[in-house]
Amino acid sequence: MSKEYFVNTLQVGEEFTDYFLVKSPSIKVGSNHKTYFDVTLCDRTGDVNGKKWDVDEVEGANLGLLKDGDIVKIRASVSEWNGIKQLRVARIRKADPGSDGLEMADYIKAAPEDPGEMFDFIWDKAQDIKDEGLKKVCTDALEENKDRLMYYPGAMRNHHAEFAGLLYHTKRMLDLGIRACEVYGDLDRDWVICGVIMHDMEKLNELNSNELGVSDGYTVKGNLLGHIVMGTIRMEERAKKAGLSEEKTVMLQHMILAHHYEPEFGSPVRPMFPEAELLHYLDMLDAKMFDFEAALEGVDGGHFSERVRTLDNRMLYKPTFKK
Amino acid sequence: MSKEYFVNTLQVGEEFTDYFLVKSPSIKVGSNHKTYFDVTLCDRTGDVNGKKWDVDEVEGANLGLLKDGDIVKIRASVSEWNGIKQLRVARIRKADPGSDGLEMADYIKAAPEDPGEMFDFIWDKAQDIKDEGLKKVCTDALEENKDRLMYYPGAMRNHHAEFAGLLYHTKRMLDLGIRACEVYGDLDRDWVICGVIMHDMEKLNELNSNELGVSDGYTVKGNLLGHIVMGTIRMEERAKKAGLSEEKTVMLQHMILAHHYEPEFGSPVRPMFPEAELLHYLDMLDAKMFDFEAALEGVDGGHFSERVRTLDNRMLYKPTFKK
Amino acid sequence: MSKEYFVNTLQVGEEFTDYFLVKSPSIKVGSNHKTYFDVTLCDRTGDVNGKKWDVDEVEGANLGLLKDGDIVKIRASVSEWNGIKQLRVARIRKADPGSDGLEMADYIKAAPEDPGEMFDFIWDKAQDIKDEGLKKVCTDALEENKDRLMYYPGAMRNHHAEFAGLLYHTKRMLDLGIRACEVYGDLDRDWVICGVIMHDMEKLNELNSNELGVSDGYTVKGNLLGHIVMGTIRMEERAKKAGLSEEKTVMLQHMILAHHYEPEFGSPVRPMFPEAELLHYLDMLDAKMFDFEAALEGVDGGHFSERVRTLDNRMLYKPTFKK
Amino acid sequence: MSKEYFVNTLQVGEEFTDYFLVKSPSIKVGSNHKTYFDVTLCDRTGDVNGKKWDVDEVEGANLGLLKDGDIVKIRASVSEWNGIKQLRVARIRKADPGSDGLEMADYIKAAPEDPGEMFDFIWDKAQDIKDEGLKKVCTDALEENKDRLMYYPGAMRNHHAEFAGLLYHTKRMLDLGIRACEVYGDLDRDWVICGVIMHDMEKLNELNSNELGVSDGYTVKGNLLGHIVMGTIRMEERAKKAGLSEEKTVMLQHMILAHHYEPEFGSPVRPMFPEAELLHYLDMLDAKMFDFEAALEGVDGGHFSERVRTLDNRMLYKPTFKK
Amino acid sequence: MSKEYFVNTLQVGEEFTDYFLVKSPSIKVGSNHKTYFDVTLCDRTGDVNGKKWDVDEVEGANLGLLKDGDIVKIRASVSEWNGIKQLRVARIRKADPGSDGLEMADYIKAAPEDPGEMFDFIWDKAQDIKDEGLKKVCTDALEENKDRLMYYPGAMRNHHAEFAGLLYHTKRMLDLGIRACEVYGDLDRDWVICGVIMHDMEKLNELNSNELGVSDGYTVKGNLLGHIVMGTIRMEERAKKAGLSEEKTVMLQHMILAHHYEPEFGSPVRPMFPEAELLHYLDMLDAKMFDFEAALEGVDGGHFSERVRTLDNRMLYKPTFKK
Amino acid sequence: MSKEYFVNTLQVGEEFTDYFLVKSPSIKVGSNHKTYFDVTLCDRTGDVNGKKWDVDEVEGANLGLLKDGDIVKIRASVSEWNGIKQLRVARIRKADPGSDGLEMADYIKAAPEDPGEMFDFIWDKAQDIKDEGLKKVCTDALEENKDRLMYYPGAMRNHHAEFAGLLYHTKRMLDLGIRACEVYGDLDRDWVICGVIMHDMEKLNELNSNELGVSDGYTVKGNLLGHIVMGTIRMEERAKKAGLSEEKTVMLQHMILAHHYEPEFGSPVRPMFPEAELLHYLDMLDAKMFDFEAALEGVDGGHFSERVRTLDNRMLYKPTFKK
Repeated sequence: MSKEYFVNTLQVGEEFTDYFLVKSPSIKVGSNHKTYFDVTLCDRTGDVNGKKWDVDEVEGANLGLLKDGDIVKIRASVSEWNGIKQLRVARIRKADPGSDGLEMADYIKAAPEDPGEMFDFIWDKAQDIKDEGLKKVCTDALEENKDRLMYYPGAMRNHHAEFAGLLYHTKRMLDLGIRACEVYGDLDRDWVICGVIMHDMEKLNELNSNELGVSDGYTVKGNLLGHIVMGTIRMEERAKKAGLSEEKTVMLQHMILAHHYEPEFGSPVRPMFPEAELLHYLDMLDAKMFDFEAALEGVDGGHFSERVRTLDNRMLYKPTFKK
Repeated sequence: MSKEYFVNTLQVGEEFTDYFLVKSPSIKVGSNHKTYFDVTLCDRTGDVNGKKWDVDEVEGANLGLLKDGDIVKIRASVSEWNGIKQLRVARIRKADPGSDGLEMADYIKAAPEDPGEMFDFIWDKAQDIKDEGLKKVCTDALEENKDRLMYYPGAMRNHHAEFAGLLYHTKRMLDLGIRACEVYGDLDRDWVICGVIMHDMEKLNELNSNELGVSDGYTVKGNLLGHIVMGTIRMEERAKKAGLSEEKTVMLQHMILAHHYEPEFGSPVRPMFPEAELLHYLDMLDAKMFDFEAALEGVDGGHFSERVRTLDNRMLYKPTFKK
Repeated sequence: MSKEYFVNTLQVGEEFTDYFLVKSPSIKVGSNHKTYFDVTLCDRTGDVNGKKWDVDEVEGANLGLLKDGDIVKIRASVSEWNGIKQLRVARIRKADPGSDGLEMADYIKAAPEDPGEMFDFIWDKAQDIKDEGLKKVCTDALEENKDRLMYYPGAMRNHHAEFAGLLYHTKRMLDLGIRACEVYGDLDRDWVICGVIMHDMEKLNELNSNELGVSDGYTVKGNLLGHIVMGTIRMEERAKKAGLSEEKTVMLQHMILAHHYEPEFGSPVRPMFPEAELLHYLDMLDAKMFDFEAALEGVDGGHFSERVRTLDNRMLYKPTFKK
Repeated sequence: MSKEYFVNTLQVGEEFTDYFLVKSPSIKVGSNHKTYFDVTLCDRTGDVNGKKWDVDEVEGANLGLLKDGDIVKIRASVSEWNGIKQLRVARIRKADPGSDGLEMADYIKAAPEDPGEMFDFIWDKAQDIKDEGLKKVCTDALEENKDRLMYYPGAMRNHHAEFAGLLYHTKRMLDLGIRACEVYGDLDRDWVICGVIMHDMEKLNELNSNELGVSDGYTVKGNLLGHIVMGTIRMEERAKKAGLSEEKTVMLQHMILAHHYEPEFGSPVRPMFPEAELLHYLDMLDAKMFDFEAALEGVDGGHFSERVRTLDNRMLYKPTFKK
Repeated sequence: MSKEYFVNTLQVGEEFTDYFLVKSPSIKVGSNHKTYFDVTLCDRTGDVNGKKWDVDEVEGANLGLLKDGDIVKIRASVSEWNGIKQLRVARIRKADPGSDGLEMADYIKAAPEDPGEMFDFIWDKAQDIKDEGLKKVCTDALEENKDRLMYYPGAMRNHHAEFAGLLYHTKRMLDLGIRACEVYGDLDRDWVICGVIMHDMEKLNELNSNELGVSDGYTVKGNLLGHIVMGTIRMEERAKKAGLSEEKTVMLQHMILAHHYEPEFGSPVRPMFPEAELLHYLDMLDAKMFDFEAALEGVDGGHFSERVRTLDNRMLYKPTFKK
Repeated sequence: MSKEYFVNTLQVGEEFTDYFLVKSPSIKVGSNHKTYFDVTLCDRTGDVNGKKWDVDEVEGANLGLLKDGDIVKIRASVSEWNGIKQLRVARIRKADPGSDGLEMADYIKAAPEDPGEMFDFIWDKAQDIKDEGLKKVCTDALEENKDRLMYYPGAMRNHHAEFAGLLYHTKRMLDLGIRACEVYGDLDRDWVICGVIMHDMEKLNELNSNELGVSDGYTVKGNLLGHIVMGTIRMEERAKKAGLSEEKTVMLQHMILAHHYEPEFGSPVRPMFPEAELLHYLDMLDAKMFDFEAALEGVDGGHFSERVRTLDNRMLYKPTFKK
């Protein structure tokens, strides 16, 4: 069944029946000492808090079985509290995506391109690398991690925190990076491609993620070392396996290590050759473009967005002549 | 006559005769109370200090006539003082570039592309703009300033401080900016083109420059307002003439105003729409690529450059496998 | 009828009937699913939240008609919640300031001096300017904006966010600025007067304001450019009309541009002549004095104020010997 | 004899005979192994390096007796080295200011007002204080330090580093402070007067100074504690003697402690009442006005000064219409 | 009676009867217009909010008599709200610690060592000082303040905000400081001991504290001057009484003044001799160790703590092999 | 032969004959076109510039053979230039330390303890470690690097830039670290010992050093990665070899990674368990103590040192009562 009501277009007062994905479900007791069910209801356009009041013991037991990632069918009405929408849920039951004929893509925030096609794009560029060692480093890493790349997000929150977000981030950086080599002739295309493909690879081990691309946090290693240093450590072994010289090994490690540029964002050294410098700007620009797109989505022409914390607290403007 | 000895390849001990461009010539008295002639000798590869010792009154009078931008023919030998090369000048006379058959391009640091071709590239992109108002803003400004754009440097020192450096900077940013529109579909190509073309246009009135693209300083207006605010002020009148709406006028002014991004680098506001954000990164990246190229020129493979002040004091690395 | 109960002296437990100005009125639904009316009630001494519980449909329809700036007559009692006072409203009706014989000055926070007199003070000082061009710039701007200056606030929040606050700010700066010229003989009085009068003039176009001097936000232009740059742009045309030389035009633009001094507060250049430097300190000092007065109002002798965000989070002290 | 040649108007090539004050005299051996005499020659307009070449043993012994603060009569010619003027001294002898009929004021940089009159101005304002305790604090301190105040500089370098500079700084701050009380009615005049008079009093014990108002450095106590904390400590005893209450004592200590405002400039707390806040701005403004006057002195109209380190490295502008 | 239920081990759902210490008791009116009693209930392991609903007038009058530091006996059940535990109180009465046989140590957060023993440790080290003046300074201060040192906390919040926390902080610093003298032979043990003992002594006058070591805020003097400057002022008189030379007096004042090292943390000067430098690091390290211990208490092996504001917002890790 | 004249006690005017170590020898041509020999002459107390004038071709050829680290015997006199001492060398010849019976310790700046004894101290502490894995990591690293540890400096410049400086730094940190475990009972001694021993081990591969403990720069790897990240990478393999669990491996890597604490000093993460925090403070304190000792050496009692760049530009004070 095709979904009709999406989070970002719900109207106050509206009553409806539709499917949503469940996040953080819990049974609570209100200040009036009655039990209610509290849940975040999500689809690909966002999420909204929902409450089912006056839950009795039997229902409570059932609702207590719901968990993160389940799909539910609800009947609800839309109210507003301090300018924030909320769903008053009248009926709720667990759905079976299969038998209910649901399209999972409707329920999770996902990169706008097909993971398989993005992976192929990246794979093809890796095959283009002329330096055999660099090519093997990329090929090995892509093969090893292909399964998880198909769904891993690029972050827990913030930019590219979405299904296949890491792949999408890598793909767009690669796309622009190769074009930059056409403008700036001193750049070595092999190093740009390899640097882009490898720069965030250890996010796969820094973050946890379920197969919907939702991360609930960092690994112990992720907290104690961070993906930048993890990638630098891991490269030692990858480079050895690919037969890279010590100089090239250190240069690849340097690219990973320096790609956040600022010490306070995790890079203990700053880029020392042009491809490493470019890598930083590709990374920055892709993050910014992602954040701009996200923040301006749903803003009306002639108006400003809310302030965006990850963009130095800026409000963004959508001109009147933009649809 | 074609120049043979260039500043960046002079060898200590070598004696030679060749032409150089004159900068900061002056007659001085040494600690031994004798008069000598002190001058900076330049060509497109750099500059070196030269001294002619024991100048008598007649010669002093002649040398006193030399001025910035003259070409001289000298006979000299190369010595070294504290690791810095210096020329001991034995003979010196003013040359006439025309009758001596000199190629001026040998004597000044210049952008590596032909000014006419760069201008045409930019002009063509301006003609591509679909919004008639934006197109007229660009076309008017390019026509008005064509003569000076053919030689103006992009700065007094630092990146793009060279003949036609401003044009080269604009051209490469435009080249990458248009490619970025192919990767990031939300970007409006018209605004990217117009933003890039106009962003530094008032450098023409912030800096002084002779026709060799050498700037000896800032104008009064340049010091008191700076090219960013000057460009914003000037846009008021340009936009009116081009019939732009108030919204579009303000948006163009915002792009100019925000393109340095950081307040401490002269932008009182940060970019508030994606094209303004991109403009900043194009500007940064082109400056960085310029500085990397310049700093690594002449560095041997496997070695580091000197520390570069404009690159946060980094030393840059040239790998052994780079020629 | 003269107002008796003011926000800053309401006592918990007290029951009363009086008039207040309405801000942000809205009908809401509580967690008990009942409808109530929520409103901010203001007078010149401050504001307090009010709630009328259990609003039925008929009354809700009436209350739904109230809007920002209306005056209401209420019967209410004062309660306290987490140390913050709140009004439980028993009765409420819209008042007619005219027929109820109300003094509007009781209902809005206003500068403590009469707008007309402040305007005259400023106007007189402008007439004192000896340089004809500078005088015309001031005279023209004052004439053009007289109507709005009579009520415009100096800010949306923070210092001088009050009826005629912009005028009050300008007047006190002018008063001290002229005295400073008596102490510092090198200062040119003409430039001090003109700089002070013009420095914030474009706040009139950066902020929205109703005629009560209450601003609900920034204009699009205000957000994208800010009043400092707007004032600099606008000066181009004003100066031309007044026949100012280019040097004087640029100097006036510089004064406006530099008056916030710090880049991160919006000034891309720092003051480069003494009158511009003085202007900055006059502006700072007046803002600080305003904030100190406001923060210490109502503090008892021997106690500290709350922390004041705009004063670097300081608590201020009122000595025991101050009344 | 009245001085004719002043440091700030010496012309290259000029030969002359006149008197100068001696600073840092020393006998040195040149790279040609000959002995020469090196000295800084000063008058109230600035200082210039002088060298007497080829000094023999007898003359060396004589010159070796010269010390800081002596006046010498020299015959010299003006040369220039790297754009910096230098005197080639032909003859030099120690002068006797008395018998040579010299005006000491020609030889030292001094505040432009008479110390006695400045002291009287300050004394009179102290007598105006209505609070008997505060008045006694000021009166005692002025009496105790009158002798040294007549010549003490306000700093070792930077603003008010001149004969009676501390007095001049205090006097001008007081002059403006009292006027500020007329504009800002909430300010308590007594506290403003007392705060200004006492704020820098311990500079007398932080800095060394000879009777020409030239400081050669800090005292041990000055280095280990600084005048701000020294003034705060000293106030404990002064206040006790004047019979001030503990509250008033602590408030005076707070004013001294907070007057630099920023922690990194030595104030561990920021001002917490309005008179302390004003004190900071009076201090800042007077320092700035001093630096502007000094930096613009000698700059031609339509030109910029050198960059001034103490003014955040700004160049200052003198307009063409300023004489 | 020995306490059984401690705040840090209460289980949601659990019902129990036990004693707690009262903080911030107050009678409030809920959104349902009913009266309830709101209180913070504390023991040595932490605190938890408690509410007794539907309080009638008689009970309200009784509860209104409770005050900070009282012990109550309650019957309550544990609920949870947004992940924060809360007690629903069914019965509550004031207890008498004496007749109920309570151990006060169960109710207040206290340093883990006995105050008397800590004081003796410090006293003994003071007797070890060889310089008679320094010894007298310490001995006098310890004698004068012994009573309050037995319970004073080291802070209002943050590290060492506990019964006898100031003593505990001083004792551990002293213990490590003396050991550091064994490693770094250049350090003068006398100065290390005296510096540690005196560095925070004026916290006794900067903070208020009841005899349970709970501080409810700063004194006026504490706010206007701070304990660092207060300690420096006070040392003037102490040193005079102990017959210290001016140099030693200033050095002791410097140690106190510099011990926070950074201007923004209250030190207007940085340490200028080795013992002053060591003092700073002893202070830092002891604060950090305290915060680490506190933050990791109760964290399970293999998990991270919450982010700790006073530790630059770090999460801390407890390894799986730690119990 | 035992050295008599040391750099730090040479007197201007003195003539002497003695041995020195050679650094940066070179043949130069003066402004008088004559050849001279320029050299830095060093012993354990410092270094001084020396010049031998008027070198003829034969002697030039001989002097041209001298290289860094050679010992020469010179006859020279001490002159001064701008307050800096210089040696006028009259005679110079290469010495043979062996046959001339020289004590090398007189010629190089060296840690004040015997390398062998320091190594043994560290080795013994490593044997104390109870965790077999951690012990093996330390033992392996110490064995592998014993030869180089006997002479490696701790830095190129700044603290511990001396013969065996790295060992001395490690030894003193270890000494204090173990004592700290006696004061702070929560610390795990094994981790403190292992962390200290391993924290700077990769300085051996970041810096070059000759066997005199003089470093002439960084390795390519040292520049591109730095010793902190190099140590983190290297630990991967060491830990594997020692059979450490993944958790312990990551924790050791974290200790190395975090030990500089501040991102801008090279640590991308901050310490997350107490032993890592302690490690940072041990490192800081040892560096500071080293710098204080070095800066105060040779300062007279009652005076201040020069400003020390590595100590935030502080001047340090040596009291009059210190010898």
